[in-house]
Amino acid sequence: MEKKLAKLKSMLAEISDLGAIAQLMGWDQQVNMPPGGAEARGTQQATLQRLIHIKSTNPELGKLLDDLKEYAKELDPDSDEAHLIKVAARDYERDIKVPPAFMAERAKVATLAQSAWEKARETDDFSLFQPHLEKVFDLAHQFVEFFAPYDHVYDPLLDIFEPGMKTEDVKRIFAALRPQQVELIRAISEQPQVDDSFLHQDFEEQKQWDFGVDVITKFGYDWNRGRQDKAVHPFTTGFSINDVRITTRIHEDYLPSGLFSTLHEGGHAIYAQGHAPELERTPLVGGASLAIHESQSRMYENLVGRSHDFWTYFYPKLQETFPEQLGNIDLETFYKGINKVEPSLIRVEADEATYNMHIMLRLELEIAVMENEIAVKDLPDAWNARMEEYLGITPPSNRDGVLQDVHWSSGSIGYFSTYALGNLVSAQLWEKINQDIPDLSSQIQNGEFGNLLTWLRTNIHRHGRKYEPQELVERVTGSQINAEPYMRYLKQKYGEIYGL
Amino acid sequence: MEKKLAKLKSMLAEISDLGAIAQLMGWDQQVNMPPGGAEARGTQQATLQRLIHIKSTNPELGKLLDDLKEYAKELDPDSDEAHLIKVAARDYERDIKVPPAFMAERAKVATLAQSAWEKARETDDFSLFQPHLEKVFDLAHQFVEFFAPYDHVYDPLLDIFEPGMKTEDVKRIFAALRPQQVELIRAISEQPQVDDSFLHQDFEEQKQWDFGVDVITKFGYDWNRGRQDKAVHPFTTGFSINDVRITTRIHEDYLPSGLFSTLHEGGHAIYAQGHAPELERTPLVGGASLAIHESQSRMYENLVGRSHDFWTYFYPKLQETFPEQLGNIDLETFYKGINKVEPSLIRVEADEATYNMHIMLRLELEIAVMENEIAVKDLPDAWNARMEEYLGITPPSNRDGVLQDVHWSSGSIGYFSTYALGNLVSAQLWEKINQDIPDLSSQIQNGEFGNLLTWLRTNIHRHGRKYEPQELVERVTGSQINAEPYMRYLKQKYGEIYGL
Repeated sequence: MEKKLAKLKSMLAEISDLGAIAQLMGWDQQVNMPPGGAEARGTQQATLQRLIHIKSTNPELGKLLDDLKEYAKELDPDSDEAHLIKVAARDYERDIKVPPAFMAERAKVATLAQSAWEKARETDDFSLFQPHLEKVFDLAHQFVEFFAPYDHVYDPLLDIFEPGMKTEDVKRIFAALRPQQVELIRAISEQPQVDDSFLHQDFEEQKQWDFGVDVITKFGYDWNRGRQDKAVHPFTTGFSINDVRITTRIHEDYLPSGLFSTLHEGGHAIYAQGHAPELERTPLVGGASLAIHESQSRMYENLVGRSHDFWTYFYPKLQETFPEQLGNIDLETFYKGINKVEPSLIRVEADEATYNMHIMLRLELEIAVMENEIAVKDLPDAWNARMEEYLGITPPSNRDGVLQDVHWSSGSIGYFSTYALGNLVSAQLWEKINQDIPDLSSQIQNGEFGNLLTWLRTNIHRHGRKYEPQELVERVTGSQINAEPYMRYLKQKYGEIYGL
Repeated sequence: MEKKLAKLKSMLAEISDLGAIAQLMGWDQQVNMPPGGAEARGTQQATLQRLIHIKSTNPELGKLLDDLKEYAKELDPDSDEAHLIKVAARDYERDIKVPPAFMAERAKVATLAQSAWEKARETDDFSLFQPHLEKVFDLAHQFVEFFAPYDHVYDPLLDIFEPGMKTEDVKRIFAALRPQQVELIRAISEQPQVDDSFLHQDFEEQKQWDFGVDVITKFGYDWNRGRQDKAVHPFTTGFSINDVRITTRIHEDYLPSGLFSTLHEGGHAIYAQGHAPELERTPLVGGASLAIHESQSRMYENLVGRSHDFWTYFYPKLQETFPEQLGNIDLETFYKGINKVEPSLIRVEADEATYNMHIMLRLELEIAVMENEIAVKDLPDAWNARMEEYLGITPPSNRDGVLQDVHWSSGSIGYFSTYALGNLVSAQLWEKINQDIPDLSSQIQNGEFGNLLTWLRTNIHRHGRKYEPQELVERVTGSQINAEPYMRYLKQKYGEIYGL
């Protein structure tokens, strides 16, 4: 059996190496590749993905995993090896269920859907996108049938991003969150608005860059094992726990954009740099789920990066960096400004208090279409009705409504909930961290982030994909993912800022 | 047969894609990779190389090539497909002869030899390197036995870099070159030296960068299909004819270094961007040989870039860029300065007139060791004796002598001659180009490089690896590779500069 385990590890290591190479190709494509290189890169990526698929669905791998299932029962259930066998079997079962011809068809549909979406958004004409989106949802229906039987038609889509989570769980969590968050937003809207005009000034790019670098260096991002570049849509990627790269984009006329982007991606990257070294070249490297990954990025971006404690330490430095722009703005004004709440049309520009509403709206629509409760053609109206209900505003155009996100056009159904779940998890962890490190608040006021990092390393980062998201959160906090800590966090923070 | 040809093309396309991916990994390693990423990158590269080797030596590929050899005889012998079958068969025959275990052993020996070489060079102690270099030559002996029978023990080593060339050819070419070049260098040394002190001033990096970019843009380097980055050791690499990237390094205290590096790599890259699009994803993409590649880089660097015609056009612009440094230096002084001839110890710093002597010295020593005429332990003395004979100087240390180059430590035996052959070919082509474009000289004086590019595209670039180097040169110039045009070029150029 030891021999079989060694064989398994060697097969998985090869798949892991090829996956890392594919990531590098993707990074280069977004950061460096000249426009002319696109076609060849697409072909090369397809060749590599085909090889990865062949190796991931190799019947010999399935046989090994079958043989090792019994052996795994003899192992310490919490050992890396027991989890390795379990996670590899889960990946294998998923991969063999989806035929390559379907994957190819889906890729083709997505390519056409994306260019149709671009056109539709440009001309604000949903009808151009509608037939493509119908095809995308048709394929999503076909996809879930590969995983029949299921409890809910949306489960197999959710499971890709949140292993083990059920649609019923997500619905229940959001049902508890929705009325509280709507009520909070309403209450804030009745208060006098805070001023954030000083954030819209001219902030030199290099200074913004350097400031962001200083912050995430203090957080613990390891530059010996990473780097930062510019990209139109910031993202984080890694090819090893020792090579995790981030990207950012800086707007000279609006300070928060680049700064919080760097903190957000820094959070993702610190997670990815923190997996246990012994997980390298195994499928246990990676985040437990997208929600858990988002919990780390949102924690550093918001719970740390938009906190009063954080700016107590960093604001004098920021004022030194931009004395003309911020010299006359005091800490309280600045703190309120970067935390201004204002219902808005565009998800990616939404503040902490309203962001989840954008997500719930999308999730409900996705589920309703999958349940055949809403037709694709009716999505624009359904979207606008919910925007009015949740945020009190109606998009003046589909471009600012149903056509704003790229996700559906790229075939990603099931993805959105991870953004909101990540927020919830970040607050759940934050409550626990503050119990375990009672003076964390004053540590942060002094620019000390070492204990926070150690806690995250120990409890979250090092485990990689060993645990499913619910399992991990319960293991660490004692509860499953739920909305209460996040609502407590929002109510306290915005209660103070808006004097509720 | 058409079906078999299609199958062959599909197998070769996959190998070509994986090779391109390996190149991208190498580029990233030298340009972007954080230090921590090195170990994982090595492992991933090894995984990919193993896959490439398996696919390149797949017996099914051998069978297909066998079957298609007869079919190729019915094709137009100059067609892409006839050449494809021929070149693919040549690559396959070479690849199956070398066992993977030998490749692994050689990689291991090279790793150890390189760090021993670094140590030896640092401490100027050849004895630290000697046992490793003996092992490197032992392996070279083992390597050539895989290709027995051969005419000369050095042939299989040379053939890796210069397909079809024989050691006897190279010996004959250099035997004709050596006395003439020694005589020229002696004659120059008796003349008053030219002044180049003005090249050693402070030249701002960004301005140097921008000037180099302007020049290669005029040459025809296509930025839509490429980019330039910084690297310690400049190189060119490509992942498609539509994604060919160059690197350079700039010294602020010495102008020629960065400028001519950009022109040199630009020459390589213009060649790589110029292969016929229909060769993409076949083994016909690439240079005909290293010497042919070097002929393109040296042509743009030297025959164009260090010519009086070139600077007639560009020198006023360079003076505008660096008015303080060059405002008082006239064109003639500048032209002589960048063409100063001075026997020196270090190959990579050698001028056009002495460079080939450095190469001949190395080539003769390599061949003599392979012929068992010189022992590795005697290389330092043999080196120094030849330096005295060819250039009239004796290295004060092995660091400035036998230990200066990395090539032997990395196991590259057979490589050096390509540098000198490239110089010879560049002059051979240059004579033919000037016959075909009689007013090329005045075109260059006017900053027009379009006809030159078209000539190179038509006669050299588009063919990729279709022809062996001798075949290509003969096809284009009517003669095989020989030393006469280069000697004519050197004698005329330096005759004028030094008033011989």
